Amino acid sequence: MSEFWRTSISQVRPNEILVRGYPVEELAARRSFGDVVYLLLTGEIPSGNQGRLVEAILIACCEHSLASPSADAVRFVASSGVPLQTAVAAGISSIGDVHGGAIEPCAHLIKEAVAGGKSAAALLGELKKHRRRMPGFGHPVHSEDPRTKVLLRLAEQWGIVGPHMKFVREIEEATESVLGRRLPMNVDGAIAGLMCDMQIDPALGKAFFIIGRAPGYVAHAHEQATAERPFKAADIGEITYTGPARRPVPPPPSPPSKD
Amino acid sequence: MSEFWRTSISQVRPNEILVRGYPVEELAARRSFGDVVYLLLTGEIPSGNQGRLVEAILIACCEHSLASPSADAVRFVASSGVPLQTAVAAGISSIGDVHGGAIEPCAHLIKEAVAGGKSAAALLGELKKHRRRMPGFGHPVHSEDPRTKVLLRLAEQWGIVGPHMKFVREIEEATESVLGRRLPMNVDGAIAGLMCDMQIDPALGKAFFIIGRAPGYVAHAHEQATAERPFKAADIGEITYTGPARRPVPPPPSPPSKD
Amino acid sequence: MSEFWRTSISQVRPNEILVRGYPVEELAARRSFGDVVYLLLTGEIPSGNQGRLVEAILIACCEHSLASPSADAVRFVASSGVPLQTAVAAGISSIGDVHGGAIEPCAHLIKEAVAGGKSAAALLGELKKHRRRMPGFGHPVHSEDPRTKVLLRLAEQWGIVGPHMKFVREIEEATESVLGRRLPMNVDGAIAGLMCDMQIDPALGKAFFIIGRAPGYVAHAHEQATAERPFKAADIGEITYTGPARRPVPPPPSPPSKD
Amino acid sequence: MSEFWRTSISQVRPNEILVRGYPVEELAARRSFGDVVYLLLTGEIPSGNQGRLVEAILIACCEHSLASPSADAVRFVASSGVPLQTAVAAGISSIGDVHGGAIEPCAHLIKEAVAGGKSAAALLGELKKHRRRMPGFGHPVHSEDPRTKVLLRLAEQWGIVGPHMKFVREIEEATESVLGRRLPMNVDGAIAGLMCDMQIDPALGKAFFIIGRAPGYVAHAHEQATAERPFKAADIGEITYTGPARRPVPPPPSPPSKD
Repeated sequence: MSEFWRTSISQVRPNEILVRGYPVEELAARRSFGDVVYLLLTGEIPSGNQGRLVEAILIACCEHSLASPSADAVRFVASSGVPLQTAVAAGISSIGDVHGGAIEPCAHLIKEAVAGGKSAAALLGELKKHRRRMPGFGHPVHSEDPRTKVLLRLAEQWGIVGPHMKFVREIEEATESVLGRRLPMNVDGAIAGLMCDMQIDPALGKAFFIIGRAPGYVAHAHEQATAERPFKAADIGEITYTGPARRPVPPPPSPPSKD
Repeated sequence: MSEFWRTSISQVRPNEILVRGYPVEELAARRSFGDVVYLLLTGEIPSGNQGRLVEAILIACCEHSLASPSADAVRFVASSGVPLQTAVAAGISSIGDVHGGAIEPCAHLIKEAVAGGKSAAALLGELKKHRRRMPGFGHPVHSEDPRTKVLLRLAEQWGIVGPHMKFVREIEEATESVLGRRLPMNVDGAIAGLMCDMQIDPALGKAFFIIGRAPGYVAHAHEQATAERPFKAADIGEITYTGPARRPVPPPPSPPSKD
Repeated sequence: MSEFWRTSISQVRPNEILVRGYPVEELAARRSFGDVVYLLLTGEIPSGNQGRLVEAILIACCEHSLASPSADAVRFVASSGVPLQTAVAAGISSIGDVHGGAIEPCAHLIKEAVAGGKSAAALLGELKKHRRRMPGFGHPVHSEDPRTKVLLRLAEQWGIVGPHMKFVREIEEATESVLGRRLPMNVDGAIAGLMCDMQIDPALGKAFFIIGRAPGYVAHAHEQATAERPFKAADIGEITYTGPARRPVPPPPSPPSKD
Repeated sequence: MSEFWRTSISQVRPNEILVRGYPVEELAARRSFGDVVYLLLTGEIPSGNQGRLVEAILIACCEHSLASPSADAVRFVASSGVPLQTAVAAGISSIGDVHGGAIEPCAHLIKEAVAGGKSAAALLGELKKHRRRMPGFGHPVHSEDPRTKVLLRLAEQWGIVGPHMKFVREIEEATESVLGRRLPMNVDGAIAGLMCDMQIDPALGKAFFIIGRAPGYVAHAHEQATAERPFKAADIGEITYTGPARRPVPPPPSPPSKD
């Protein structure tokens, strides 16, 4: 038995594909994509409505126009004459610590706080003391993010709100007294609370944007290739150059022989 | 109005995100992820069950164990100490012409053939004459792919089978007489037929594997990082070296001064 | 002996690294990076000044400011809070068919023409007949590209100009009579001619930009991370939205149960 | 003047390309690639032999056969039918924290220690107390890395060894007494010391592998495409599956209507 090629995720045999033990054709026929994402991320099919909530989260993450670094990266790469998957990969690679990256640290913080019985105000106070921001709160464009609202409503309706989501709400309440101004929970904060209540590993915090925005990147790459001109780049007249003025190249200091 | 930043995909305003005109919170509450993928790929919400079929296709594409170049690439990259999105991007970038890449050329061929009233046998004959293979048929592991079967059954049940899917079936029938042996339609061939019947642009053929396998890549990156050792690489004792034996480096031919 | 892990490029044993048979420490001490690139691309250390010319080509390719899709992609990705290598990889992935991509088809065309004894005018005429452009000629910004000039001068000085580079020059001469206006050879055309005269496989045409611009991408990623603000993205006020106006989401056509 | 497109790296005007102020054609004619890498990374042309040392470092990093995660990733991606740049990008993206990633933290530690007048033994002792390893020491294959040796010799010969490289050597000496066994400096440790003595920002620690190994990745992608079969993947007979056995898919818990 190979130690090198080992996985618990799926098994392939002639005419059989099992995902975490489940025949893929039964999954396709009987369950939603959200159920399958939950299965892949946690190892089990959801017992309740978690798959529906995962699916709603993925939809909430699907697009944010050209107002995001990743979609812009997709457009530039797609304009260079590369295949669809190359442009989409550039977008995926750009889901970084400051772009869809607040979910993971937020989930870690609230999971630890809830497990340790820490209050929301205490957590906020500690972060303030260390001059750290609470991830998952505030947004440059949305003061009341429509994605946050709908996810909370659906989670309640579908019976998924647990101690972590409640804790995130308590943080929102506590921002005013501890930080001096109310910071609204953003979509990252909502997803962080919900993923903890669904027992998904906080280390997978970026997975929702990665999976959910993939079709958005496909659409951007396709639109760039079909509706726009190739070679998208800043015009030289638009670029502000801040480096040194033209200067002559000095000669090498000595014959650059290597031995 | 900017010519440089232009898109028809979505619109963001404070507290409002519209995807192809639809409020994202309504999409999250009322429609499936498959519906939203269809919307992003074609510009419109499906009129019938197309979103359900898209969702079934995505599930069919979600995993194929370590028996695929892309999942293997994810494992090696993930073992190098990189963030989740970097490993997933490597997997996405590997959905290439010989790995999930048969859908696109298959869809182009059948769309053209159906539009031009060409018969399946005629198309196969032409390809044979030019020593080209018909993409979307045959599989190294599956003689009867469970994914193909379930997608055809669901498409019929949900009323989506049209002239293109029928044409793909006729090709399967014709392989025996034209090529001398029956080549089974594989999952790429089935998706190609279905995407044409759903009016999705053949140029988006790779989108189903890109989007559908993204959660599989997430699971592989996560398993690699949590259950396996870092720095996955071929052991030097396992590598067959086929190059020249050790040899001395010749001196540079002349003083390599550059001017 | 493993068939799975097989390479002729290098061999690693305890305390020994051989590149195409040459001890890497001797290469580092005695040869230039250009020599080593030539060695890796062709299998042999150059017999003459090819390594110096390769090095000059790499330098010529090293930067083109923000006026290129790949550097712009690097900036957006780097602004997302990702590691250096992720941002550089996005730039590399963007060396596509319309961005550094003319070298390869140009080299294929001239190699075939020279081997077949075809004249430059004949080649141009054929392309014109099929409404195809000759790759490697013309540039949106540079009418007289300084990179082209210096590479031709160095190649002559270092004794590397052969039949392929001569052929590229004949094409430049012939553009006026065949196409009606003089198209200047661009840096891609010059590299194509020189790589053929150096016996480098035309399939490696993109290698010079990939390798040569890598340090440029490093500089862009570093500058973005150290001198600019995170989350570089188009401002929502700058985006022209061309899609449908706000519209309500229609209900699903039927209870979306899957079985 | 645009705030959005701003750079100090290079300037492009018609028929003029300046890199940090230097005409690119003069750089190509008069300086080495190592000089230009140094220029791009630091903003200035080296005053002494730093460019030659940078070039030797890049050569030292150029290849490590299939015994590295990144080269293996290149092979799998390249086997999928993607363009050269896509496969190379996957390799670059895999220069992660445990693969070429020791240079950066090593450089940070020694820069801080040298600036603060801390002794090598004191630094090692602190790390041991916090159960942290000193990055840049020890290697799974090489007990005496030929790359380390040659770089130290060249740096001395070319007059570049300064306080940081001396400090790295003192660490090597101190490992025996502090840690109980001698840990040899590896190539990452050597590069860390040298980059500090050359005033290159420690944050650029991964740049040497990124740039230096790029031609190695090109060679691997090319060899995979020309000498090996497409669709490189683990054979299903080689994969050890550790997940649950085949099991039926449970029905969804309730009609999954979304509203």
